[in-house]
Amino acid sequence: MERSFNLFSPIDYRYSVEELKKYLSEEAFIKYKAKVEASLAKVLLKRKFISEKIYREIVEAVENISPEEVYEEEKRIKHDIRALVNCIRKRVSEEAKPYIHLFATSYDIVDTANVMRYRDAVENVILPDMIRLEKIWMEISLRYKDTLQIGRTHGQHAEPITFGFSIALYVHRWGERIVRVKEAKENLKGKFSGAVGAYNSLSIFFENPEEFEMDVLSELGLKPAEISTQIVPPEPVADFFHSIITSFGVLANFADDMRHLQRSEIGEVGEAFEEKQVGSSTMPQKKNPVNFENIKSMWKAILPRILTVYMDQISEHQRDLTNSCSQRFLPEILVAFDSSVRRMIRISEKLQVDAENMEKNFKMSEFKIIAEPLYIFLAVSGHPDAHEYVRGKVMECMREKKSLYKLVMEDESVKPYIDKIDERQKEILRNPSKYTGISSKKAEKIVNLWKERLSI
Amino acid sequence: MERSFNLFSPIDYRYSVEELKKYLSEEAFIKYKAKVEASLAKVLLKRKFISEKIYREIVEAVENISPEEVYEEEKRIKHDIRALVNCIRKRVSEEAKPYIHLFATSYDIVDTANVMRYRDAVENVILPDMIRLEKIWMEISLRYKDTLQIGRTHGQHAEPITFGFSIALYVHRWGERIVRVKEAKENLKGKFSGAVGAYNSLSIFFENPEEFEMDVLSELGLKPAEISTQIVPPEPVADFFHSIITSFGVLANFADDMRHLQRSEIGEVGEAFEEKQVGSSTMPQKKNPVNFENIKSMWKAILPRILTVYMDQISEHQRDLTNSCSQRFLPEILVAFDSSVRRMIRISEKLQVDAENMEKNFKMSEFKIIAEPLYIFLAVSGHPDAHEYVRGKVMECMREKKSLYKLVMEDESVKPYIDKIDERQKEILRNPSKYTGISSKKAEKIVNLWKERLSI
Amino acid sequence: MERSFNLFSPIDYRYSVEELKKYLSEEAFIKYKAKVEASLAKVLLKRKFISEKIYREIVEAVENISPEEVYEEEKRIKHDIRALVNCIRKRVSEEAKPYIHLFATSYDIVDTANVMRYRDAVENVILPDMIRLEKIWMEISLRYKDTLQIGRTHGQHAEPITFGFSIALYVHRWGERIVRVKEAKENLKGKFSGAVGAYNSLSIFFENPEEFEMDVLSELGLKPAEISTQIVPPEPVADFFHSIITSFGVLANFADDMRHLQRSEIGEVGEAFEEKQVGSSTMPQKKNPVNFENIKSMWKAILPRILTVYMDQISEHQRDLTNSCSQRFLPEILVAFDSSVRRMIRISEKLQVDAENMEKNFKMSEFKIIAEPLYIFLAVSGHPDAHEYVRGKVMECMREKKSLYKLVMEDESVKPYIDKIDERQKEILRNPSKYTGISSKKAEKIVNLWKERLSI
Amino acid sequence: MERSFNLFSPIDYRYSVEELKKYLSEEAFIKYKAKVEASLAKVLLKRKFISEKIYREIVEAVENISPEEVYEEEKRIKHDIRALVNCIRKRVSEEAKPYIHLFATSYDIVDTANVMRYRDAVENVILPDMIRLEKIWMEISLRYKDTLQIGRTHGQHAEPITFGFSIALYVHRWGERIVRVKEAKENLKGKFSGAVGAYNSLSIFFENPEEFEMDVLSELGLKPAEISTQIVPPEPVADFFHSIITSFGVLANFADDMRHLQRSEIGEVGEAFEEKQVGSSTMPQKKNPVNFENIKSMWKAILPRILTVYMDQISEHQRDLTNSCSQRFLPEILVAFDSSVRRMIRISEKLQVDAENMEKNFKMSEFKIIAEPLYIFLAVSGHPDAHEYVRGKVMECMREKKSLYKLVMEDESVKPYIDKIDERQKEILRNPSKYTGISSKKAEKIVNLWKERLSI
Repeated sequence: MERSFNLFSPIDYRYSVEELKKYLSEEAFIKYKAKVEASLAKVLLKRKFISEKIYREIVEAVENISPEEVYEEEKRIKHDIRALVNCIRKRVSEEAKPYIHLFATSYDIVDTANVMRYRDAVENVILPDMIRLEKIWMEISLRYKDTLQIGRTHGQHAEPITFGFSIALYVHRWGERIVRVKEAKENLKGKFSGAVGAYNSLSIFFENPEEFEMDVLSELGLKPAEISTQIVPPEPVADFFHSIITSFGVLANFADDMRHLQRSEIGEVGEAFEEKQVGSSTMPQKKNPVNFENIKSMWKAILPRILTVYMDQISEHQRDLTNSCSQRFLPEILVAFDSSVRRMIRISEKLQVDAENMEKNFKMSEFKIIAEPLYIFLAVSGHPDAHEYVRGKVMECMREKKSLYKLVMEDESVKPYIDKIDERQKEILRNPSKYTGISSKKAEKIVNLWKERLSI
Repeated sequence: MERSFNLFSPIDYRYSVEELKKYLSEEAFIKYKAKVEASLAKVLLKRKFISEKIYREIVEAVENISPEEVYEEEKRIKHDIRALVNCIRKRVSEEAKPYIHLFATSYDIVDTANVMRYRDAVENVILPDMIRLEKIWMEISLRYKDTLQIGRTHGQHAEPITFGFSIALYVHRWGERIVRVKEAKENLKGKFSGAVGAYNSLSIFFENPEEFEMDVLSELGLKPAEISTQIVPPEPVADFFHSIITSFGVLANFADDMRHLQRSEIGEVGEAFEEKQVGSSTMPQKKNPVNFENIKSMWKAILPRILTVYMDQISEHQRDLTNSCSQRFLPEILVAFDSSVRRMIRISEKLQVDAENMEKNFKMSEFKIIAEPLYIFLAVSGHPDAHEYVRGKVMECMREKKSLYKLVMEDESVKPYIDKIDERQKEILRNPSKYTGISSKKAEKIVNLWKERLSI
Repeated sequence: MERSFNLFSPIDYRYSVEELKKYLSEEAFIKYKAKVEASLAKVLLKRKFISEKIYREIVEAVENISPEEVYEEEKRIKHDIRALVNCIRKRVSEEAKPYIHLFATSYDIVDTANVMRYRDAVENVILPDMIRLEKIWMEISLRYKDTLQIGRTHGQHAEPITFGFSIALYVHRWGERIVRVKEAKENLKGKFSGAVGAYNSLSIFFENPEEFEMDVLSELGLKPAEISTQIVPPEPVADFFHSIITSFGVLANFADDMRHLQRSEIGEVGEAFEEKQVGSSTMPQKKNPVNFENIKSMWKAILPRILTVYMDQISEHQRDLTNSCSQRFLPEILVAFDSSVRRMIRISEKLQVDAENMEKNFKMSEFKIIAEPLYIFLAVSGHPDAHEYVRGKVMECMREKKSLYKLVMEDESVKPYIDKIDERQKEILRNPSKYTGISSKKAEKIVNLWKERLSI
Repeated sequence: MERSFNLFSPIDYRYSVEELKKYLSEEAFIKYKAKVEASLAKVLLKRKFISEKIYREIVEAVENISPEEVYEEEKRIKHDIRALVNCIRKRVSEEAKPYIHLFATSYDIVDTANVMRYRDAVENVILPDMIRLEKIWMEISLRYKDTLQIGRTHGQHAEPITFGFSIALYVHRWGERIVRVKEAKENLKGKFSGAVGAYNSLSIFFENPEEFEMDVLSELGLKPAEISTQIVPPEPVADFFHSIITSFGVLANFADDMRHLQRSEIGEVGEAFEEKQVGSSTMPQKKNPVNFENIKSMWKAILPRILTVYMDQISEHQRDLTNSCSQRFLPEILVAFDSSVRRMIRISEKLQVDAENMEKNFKMSEFKIIAEPLYIFLAVSGHPDAHEYVRGKVMECMREKKSLYKLVMEDESVKPYIDKIDERQKEILRNPSKYTGISSKKAEKIVNLWKERLSI
């Protein structure tokens, strides 16, 4: 891929995804629109409106359209779809000319082409990428399902879990999003109902213009919206971008978690660093979580754009054109997202996990962690105010730097309750690293659940 | 309902929905949280952890909690859920005290209470309201299915439709949103998995802590998230508010359409005006679309809040608390939305439709409207450049203020094509009010489709 | 300008502004960053840290850097600024090498380069464009300062104004924004304070490291932030983009106003249409306000991006990198804005104003418009309930299709008050087209005000 | 303050600021609107349009209006301002009635009342609160100006600073925002130009209607917009809320910094914890940064609302009403912000700073920190590739767990450069805690700068 830097958009000069070009570039868009015109010709052929010869002429013309000529023509006549039509017309015989774009309005072409290319980009690139990441996270979750980690709430040490369990959460959230993206993609609809959606011209020539529409779209693997105006109803597209944006949110959360686990004081995970990689232009010692930071940053750049999608739900009467320019920016959301998925794949594949540091961090709070089980054991043993009692003891042990376990075990006032605590429970108080609940089992269960649901 | 005006929030002093108070007010929230505590007691009873007597004590205590006492206690100890727990504890015997909130973490209670009240508000108030509006729009669509209206694109007269057809679009979009809201509501999940989601304490006492969780939630009619941390995964809630926000977008679009159709120069629809109603404080003649404007305005106030939902997808590690305050604002979205649905019901019920003005506006452009069918007839008749030919003729007829039909009929150069146009087509050229495609039929079809899909 | 269509971003393939490339393209960015490195060399020379010879070497190297080589090197070492530094180093002697980037951290270069190019883009392209538009709107305002137009509130006819008055509002709002953009641009600050902002390395070699910073920046026409971390404080940049986004809002409002005034039923203004221009791909008769629609649409695409700027106010401790990728998208805001300003210039220059239609629309409501002056005249004459009285009469005259003036003049019950209305006032009741207040004078005054304030 | 919990809005039931009620509650709003009506009466008196007696009647009436009666009347006539006017009218003599609201349109009252109360809330509560916080941060900055802290970039240890320096950044950013809020508040403008802004009715009775407007507003301490329609131009209000939202961003960043510095592994700062305070409902040992989390969370809830302000820049023609409902939510932004400022004051006042932990964390990276000065010393000593050399040595010392200083000092290959490093520099390499640049001095300088600029 050759690259230009005389560009404004980082999507193109820096975060591009080559494989998406054939669906989401402007060149691709024009080809997709031309395909819709070809599909129309096919239906005209089937309805014997045009001859096989004319049909072939049109198909050939359509396949040879270049974006340059369309833009050139648009400059002259100031209408993008008519420009495309004219370019096709130029390439066919006089006899074929009348049938180009016949019965169609611009947005029969544009809206249909858009959902088609969104669908193809998702099916061929984005979903496979999402699934690839899911698999990597599954592996990590399984690999570390028994690796002790201190669970953190409010940035504070809470109760122990395993690293595999904390990753399993992402396996689940990402799995759900994969399903949502798939559903939303399948729910995208096309249209071929004419200038105001009432099949005004089609209905003069065909008994059942909705059948005509169905035919044009099924050639393209699409279904028509049950009703449309000049444009398709905007909600399926909004649902679709919602599915993408919420998927991006899962990435961003993962990235944030890892960024913080890579903090100098925590050091539980790290981005792999290449031999030649420079961390800072002035501090030669730095190893920064630059890729996790990049994903979070991209999310901040892209998230607000969902608002454009929501604002574009409003179009006056049978449509105004104020969603036209804004829609042209939507493919960027897909590219930015996929670019971040791929980055996440790269760094997840080589994620460095430091089980020693996890253990070390856990140890820091070992003595305090037993406060919860202790409170619960006392409560179950019948202590009427166990939470408050333990809270007081924690304060005391922090002041006096004593072991909470010892302090309580030696406290005569709670002896009757202590005596009811059984051995297995006492073992946990002595060795809180066993207090990980069903972390390991759950990690396995979740991974299996999604293996099955996604058939991967 | 008595009202206070010593408040900051218009949601309370002005746009309140009384029926939603028992689900979405702060008082209701506390009651819902208490219900989760009661459900826990029920499961403890079933597992024979507590006696019937203790269970009854707890249930009674839970039913009598007042928000005032909880807030009073919170002021003392600075923790909202522990305050609630303390208030319940105060009302039960020493013997019962240890079992309150046992095994639970705050967000087992909070997240579960929230999805429960969202669900109840939707099932009992919001969906019924949405369906009521759907029915009204269905009626309007059917009533005016044959009422001629000029279709508008870009604010410009395009092709004719019927008013019922234009409303049918909203019947469809709104119907789809009803389905989406219903699905999203059903997908909301609770949790009872403890402080970091690994069932740390539960797993010590119960072989199958996930079953315990399932039981607590099924008492409340909920299912647990497949995996959670201290909080439930945020995506189902994001999907839910997406369904609400996109529904709001449909309302806003309808409101905008009507606002413009009520413009002085257009006058096709109008909000009913009461005898005593004042339109302007200084212009006694004014009749403004104030309710449609209000709905659009409310949408502008509420739409951006979806971003908070998306930002709250990010919570560090097993959770940070930066989604706590922000979540408290989410019920307002539901109230504002329902308040606008109800307003839309009121004005849609009495919508004034001026078929005469619709006809008059249609007539304005009658002579130009035939340009499309004319171009298509010529094209189908074999004219190789029909679009450009007609475009030229339109320019000419506007300059010379002549009838397009006449101009073309008299043009010798296109006679061969004209001759191929059949009578039924010529009739449309002479009487373009017949050029409404399948508007009427489609309106009927869409209404029937949604009657069936929603079983209403 | 040759264009590529194998791109995702409409900013580059469709809405590009050639003149901005030398400030805001990636290529330009690299050149700007290199300039900061050169400025550093200049100061090292002045401080006699390096020789004239070394300085010249560096300057020459800096001027010859190509983006391709920098990206090539970045691929190897994964650090953009170090890549730039290496590329400069490669081009200089061993002796000069140590002084490249000496004392600098990456963001001394990046943040400084960014504010510099924003400033230059604004000074050289955007502000001149804004002023050009201001002048065109001034002309329109003056040209039509006496052209009667019905003022509209709520889309309803209210009181008469002049078209020039309605444009004067935009002259004023736009003028204010020009001032705001200018101020915000001047308040942008650079930095040269090192890795964490404390001049850690500089302070070892220089008594007054802040003076060193000042020197590096004044070479570039900038001032340093009073304090910085690794990055400059984000607020001046936020203020700057706020000034741009609110300017865009004024454009969008203007566009919306014109779109609606171009509605078929209103027809007061129109975008000029070229001879060859096509309005619709299927409706040859259409003349749509496509440029006004485009501007509104671009605003919807760009507005939400301000949120990224606000989110980027947060950077952890002495900075995290989560603002790096997101910042790369900021130049697009400037390009999109300027592209819309230029579009607005093109269509404003040729704005078609239809004074006849304005008059016709005014006439529609002439009879109702006098309600306000009538109510006020009666009130001033002492009628205790004039507003309610007139409101009733308006209702009556609408029911009975009578003239409001006649109805009131003939009403004996108000005769005592009528008699107090003087001749000049009665003239207004008879000829409400004179009821335009100080529209004309105000238009003139506002235009003169801004001519003076902007010295244009 | 008694509180109701039968409310939806957390702004009222939970985050209320009592002192703001007299400016920003609905009750206050009605009083402010009544004040504008009184001001009009004052000007009518001065112009001898009404007698002193009538004026007194009006003033007395205005002072006694209750929100309940206004809402009651609005229910009847569906117009909020006319309802207010009617309520005043009811309380005055027949003779006085005609002069209530004379010449005014609703938004002369509403827009003027709004900017007045925003101004008063800012002047009397918000700015004093902001300044109080500024002083507290100043104190902290000075108190810890020499307290060593490791500077962090990317969450990684970078170069040392002092804690006072890191706070000084916030002193500066907050100081700048105070100035911005003050300016924006002073730039808010009122209006009294009538229904479409052309002084249509006023101009019939007064030679200079702009002077009349000026008078009405100067009674209220305001200036008129240079030109208005039915409403004031929206930009000054947008600038104002921008100043508030960006101030909120500074709070949010501070909160985030502290949250992370309070992490279990870092422990450099902490929120003061009260004796009775509970950290977790189930984990008695927890001390969470709940107030910092709350501020960040409130910011996430409020930030997106700025978009409503930007969307409300668009109002069709002389205005549509779609900004009316949305504007009613704006005071909530001020309350939420001030509530967070006050929370920040409370926790900043008692901020616990753990200098020991700061030192301990610094020590962790001491050996790596010298990489930057080392590279620079070598570079200045003429080493042609010092950055790369040191980067390699850091890798080596991490692999071999050796001291970087030792490793380099013993490396014969760089001896010639080492020899050029002077004693003061070597001292830094041996004792990097001295490598804090001008941290301490800068903290002092910034505090003094803002003491002076704000005269506090």
